[in-house]
Amino acid sequence: MAEMLIQESITSLQNAQVKRLVRLRTRRERQAEGLWLIEGARELGRALASGLAFQTLYHCPELFSDEARELLPTLEALPLAAVRCTREVFEKVSHRENPDGLLALAPPPSPALPPLTEHTLLLVLMGLEKPGNLGALLRTADGVGVDAVLVVGEGTDLGNPGVIRASQGSVFTQPVIALEERQALEWLRANAFTLVACTPEAALPYWDAPLTGRVALCLGSEHDGLPAAWRSAADLGVSIPMRGQADSLNVSVAGALVLYEARRQRAHQQAGGQL
Amino acid sequence: MAEMLIQESITSLQNAQVKRLVRLRTRRERQAEGLWLIEGARELGRALASGLAFQTLYHCPELFSDEARELLPTLEALPLAAVRCTREVFEKVSHRENPDGLLALAPPPSPALPPLTEHTLLLVLMGLEKPGNLGALLRTADGVGVDAVLVVGEGTDLGNPGVIRASQGSVFTQPVIALEERQALEWLRANAFTLVACTPEAALPYWDAPLTGRVALCLGSEHDGLPAAWRSAADLGVSIPMRGQADSLNVSVAGALVLYEARRQRAHQQAGGQL
Repeated sequence: MAEMLIQESITSLQNAQVKRLVRLRTRRERQAEGLWLIEGARELGRALASGLAFQTLYHCPELFSDEARELLPTLEALPLAAVRCTREVFEKVSHRENPDGLLALAPPPSPALPPLTEHTLLLVLMGLEKPGNLGALLRTADGVGVDAVLVVGEGTDLGNPGVIRASQGSVFTQPVIALEERQALEWLRANAFTLVACTPEAALPYWDAPLTGRVALCLGSEHDGLPAAWRSAADLGVSIPMRGQADSLNVSVAGALVLYEARRQRAHQQAGGQL
Repeated sequence: MAEMLIQESITSLQNAQVKRLVRLRTRRERQAEGLWLIEGARELGRALASGLAFQTLYHCPELFSDEARELLPTLEALPLAAVRCTREVFEKVSHRENPDGLLALAPPPSPALPPLTEHTLLLVLMGLEKPGNLGALLRTADGVGVDAVLVVGEGTDLGNPGVIRASQGSVFTQPVIALEERQALEWLRANAFTLVACTPEAALPYWDAPLTGRVALCLGSEHDGLPAAWRSAADLGVSIPMRGQADSLNVSVAGALVLYEARRQRAHQQAGGQL
């Protein structure tokens, strides 16, 4: 363990930094400070690889996982303030059941949209409420290789530690952009996106919809689905065929199906096969 | 609220039934007693619709959700012992954050396999560790309409309250059958199933694999994937193309993609379209 990472120590739960880190679990505090809490070696590694600069690193060597130890040489080479915590302190500031001993404060990423092409594929998420679902969709969007994710309107914010965790850091590996609802809709229309609304009311199975070209796949919240303005603005509505007794799939599963169907069609198009 | 449901009351956390219900959260106790805990109006409704007979119903009118109230007439018509609980008692025996006031004890379902056809589609889950993943896959399997799910080997058991919950009761709406590993493999081979191993090492994208016919889609555990014996026994290995920085998808997402691709191919086959 290099000395570099031990510039300061916290041993008391009453320490002001401990209280601040706990407060930063709320959206309001994150916005007021302009900082996110990023926890876990995998998430920190992906944030670093994306170019994010950490402000402060909190670490607890007693809790280090193998993955945390592997990341140490990289962290030690960074110009950042490092604060060593006792196990008790770290477990207090962690929001995980089994923390791996690494947590950083960093300003949020400020990703830019990549240049648009004829094949740009966007995922648009509207007002998701559960951090686990938003994070899971970001993880799948990374896997499928979308060009960007637009996170629109009210709902869970991207800096929610549960989002960062469920995304496994995929919130950093791709352009994920928060937008107002109206701004998003106007931008998508101005840029001639085919808007595909994923909604249980649609009659068209998603696998019969043309999902190649410049396409934005739009998913609404767990409870309310897509707002009416988006359903009526959409060029296409698609649904997932349901043959059982349940009336819906989890939104992260529904989103994955439509995203990967778009990818499948694009792969077949590239290979010269029929759609 | 009919009198029928108030045959007995529990007001003390020290009551022996409270302690028994808490013990039944462990697999060992469930196996020893031959009983599952089924909580929540949706889950109870689906269990009843599948023909399951409840032994005892615990209820707390103070906590009833709208969905719970809607189920009451059905419950009141059943020949079962009903025990009314105070809010404090119910919250103690519940394993949910926001209980809806209904919980039943019932013997596990004992589903039979449907007759095999040329198109039988099975999902085979091997040693999944997380109840949320196993439950999510059962929910998706219900949606896609598999003929049965085989839950094989060690791992989370089907009676785990987290499985019942994440499945939203889909563990009751379809044949879900627990089998030993060897027994399952021998049965699948004896019945001429095409075994499709879903594994990140496979070169074949799942969307290029033929998934019509009598097919068993096999998924391994979150950590270890499919055992070597199953990978080598498989007729086909398929993977999900990954274009981002993460190396894998959540197993419940990966399973959903392969299940729905099988359904898509079958729909196109039926429609006379090309695969």
